[in-house]
Amino acid sequence: MRTRFDGKSISGTVPAPGGERGILLGDGAFETILSLNGTPVWLAAHLDRLEAALSTLGMPVGRKHMEDEVRAVTGREPGVVRLSVLRGGSGRGLAGAGPEVPPAVLASFAPLPRGVFREPVRMAVSSVRRNEGSPSSRMKTLSYADNILASREAAAKGADEALMLNNAGRVASASIGNIFIVRGARLITPPGTEGVLGGITRRRVLEMASGLGLEAAEAPLSVGDLVSADAVFMTNSLRLASPVTELDGTALKCTDAAYRVFSRLCADIVSETGLDPRETLPRGQ
Amino acid sequence: MRTRFDGKSISGTVPAPGGERGILLGDGAFETILSLNGTPVWLAAHLDRLEAALSTLGMPVGRKHMEDEVRAVTGREPGVVRLSVLRGGSGRGLAGAGPEVPPAVLASFAPLPRGVFREPVRMAVSSVRRNEGSPSSRMKTLSYADNILASREAAAKGADEALMLNNAGRVASASIGNIFIVRGARLITPPGTEGVLGGITRRRVLEMASGLGLEAAEAPLSVGDLVSADAVFMTNSLRLASPVTELDGTALKCTDAAYRVFSRLCADIVSETGLDPRETLPRGQ
Repeated sequence: MRTRFDGKSISGTVPAPGGERGILLGDGAFETILSLNGTPVWLAAHLDRLEAALSTLGMPVGRKHMEDEVRAVTGREPGVVRLSVLRGGSGRGLAGAGPEVPPAVLASFAPLPRGVFREPVRMAVSSVRRNEGSPSSRMKTLSYADNILASREAAAKGADEALMLNNAGRVASASIGNIFIVRGARLITPPGTEGVLGGITRRRVLEMASGLGLEAAEAPLSVGDLVSADAVFMTNSLRLASPVTELDGTALKCTDAAYRVFSRLCADIVSETGLDPRETLPRGQ
Repeated sequence: MRTRFDGKSISGTVPAPGGERGILLGDGAFETILSLNGTPVWLAAHLDRLEAALSTLGMPVGRKHMEDEVRAVTGREPGVVRLSVLRGGSGRGLAGAGPEVPPAVLASFAPLPRGVFREPVRMAVSSVRRNEGSPSSRMKTLSYADNILASREAAAKGADEALMLNNAGRVASASIGNIFIVRGARLITPPGTEGVLGGITRRRVLEMASGLGLEAAEAPLSVGDLVSADAVFMTNSLRLASPVTELDGTALKCTDAAYRVFSRLCADIVSETGLDPRETLPRGQ
């Protein structure tokens, strides 16, 4: 096979030491992990989710191998670990015919972006739908084209984030996080079957709800449910919980309940890492 | 940023000279081009489609650059060119914040696989749906996870290919090609809005239909429409047109019309390349 990359001839089949299929077909999965004080936050839950995704994709990797790679890159400063697993092998064809090589494991560590915690988010409803009819919509695969299209569309509209519906027109998620609403004492997020990633923070929030006097439920949501909610917030492993203050220019409400969720997530992280995210990187700094 | 790949520390941000975002987020698009006698078949149509996808993705590349890369790798032997364009830049965040670097262009050439022409295809209906609600389902992006899941599922069932429905339960496509049926004198394929890639061969077939005495139409199809059709075939740029002989174990019919389509495609290619695909690589060789 002859290969050229950026005008240069490349020896070997692709311009990487491994993970050829992962690179050229978005064939793999990843995790994005908050790191404070040298501790990757909720690492066991991240590895659980990645293992489940790799099992569905048929490309298992030893858990210790993945954990070792995370620990090898993790620094002391507040940061984010990206752990990616890419299917190996350079054989043509989608099913991966030919002798399979092991998946490639890639880990990187970068400083935490500024203003990541509790920044309010202005959302725009995206024209790009989540695919509720594929298992990939419930996993963090390397195939992120839909999320990227949605994110770029939101930015072009001057919004911070995209609200993605599914093909039934119901709320699925943001392009980079899960969506929750508070309605009275109820805390509601759409179920996985709506085309929703099984978020690590999402699950933590569902688990802690009763301790905050909230009754948690996974139930379908409409755009109207967001507009009429007492609070709307977005969760992910870096932002934890961010209030959604605007949807297509309409102001959304935010009760204290959303802030109590954020505070409880911070308290969880203090007990795991010894650092409070709010003190590590003050809002907007 | 610290990065490790396959247990080795990597200098720079990712293990490739460019296209970091394309690699780690399936952020880009590609073409798979048949090559005979040193001529990339239907190259102009492939570059048109790729340019349209890159425009939607907001990552334009000069057409001459792409064409030069294709010609630089193309050999004389029957083969397949893969032309991939990957978004550059290593900035975090889906929208591609930070200074953008130009997309990376990757071209490779491999010998044509055996038995690619006119091999009959046994299909299984996939549990993985096509996302009719995203523009990505109509483009050849690097985010191929759904197609890969469907292809692997079909292989696990002992079938050659997956028949993918959309979220409305109607026929979209195969994991690697478009679907046509013949019913009497009508030639029908689902429209793009069903979650269908705008296939190069698909368009050629629609254009040539009237010359073959067939009335072409883009119309929604059910699984039942396939089972009751006079012929079902799959098209793509390598296989051209392959009869679909079985669906979940049920035999499908195949009239002469499907073979006339294949023959006409071959005749088109003779006039472009001087070689007949059937003579270049006899069936099953």
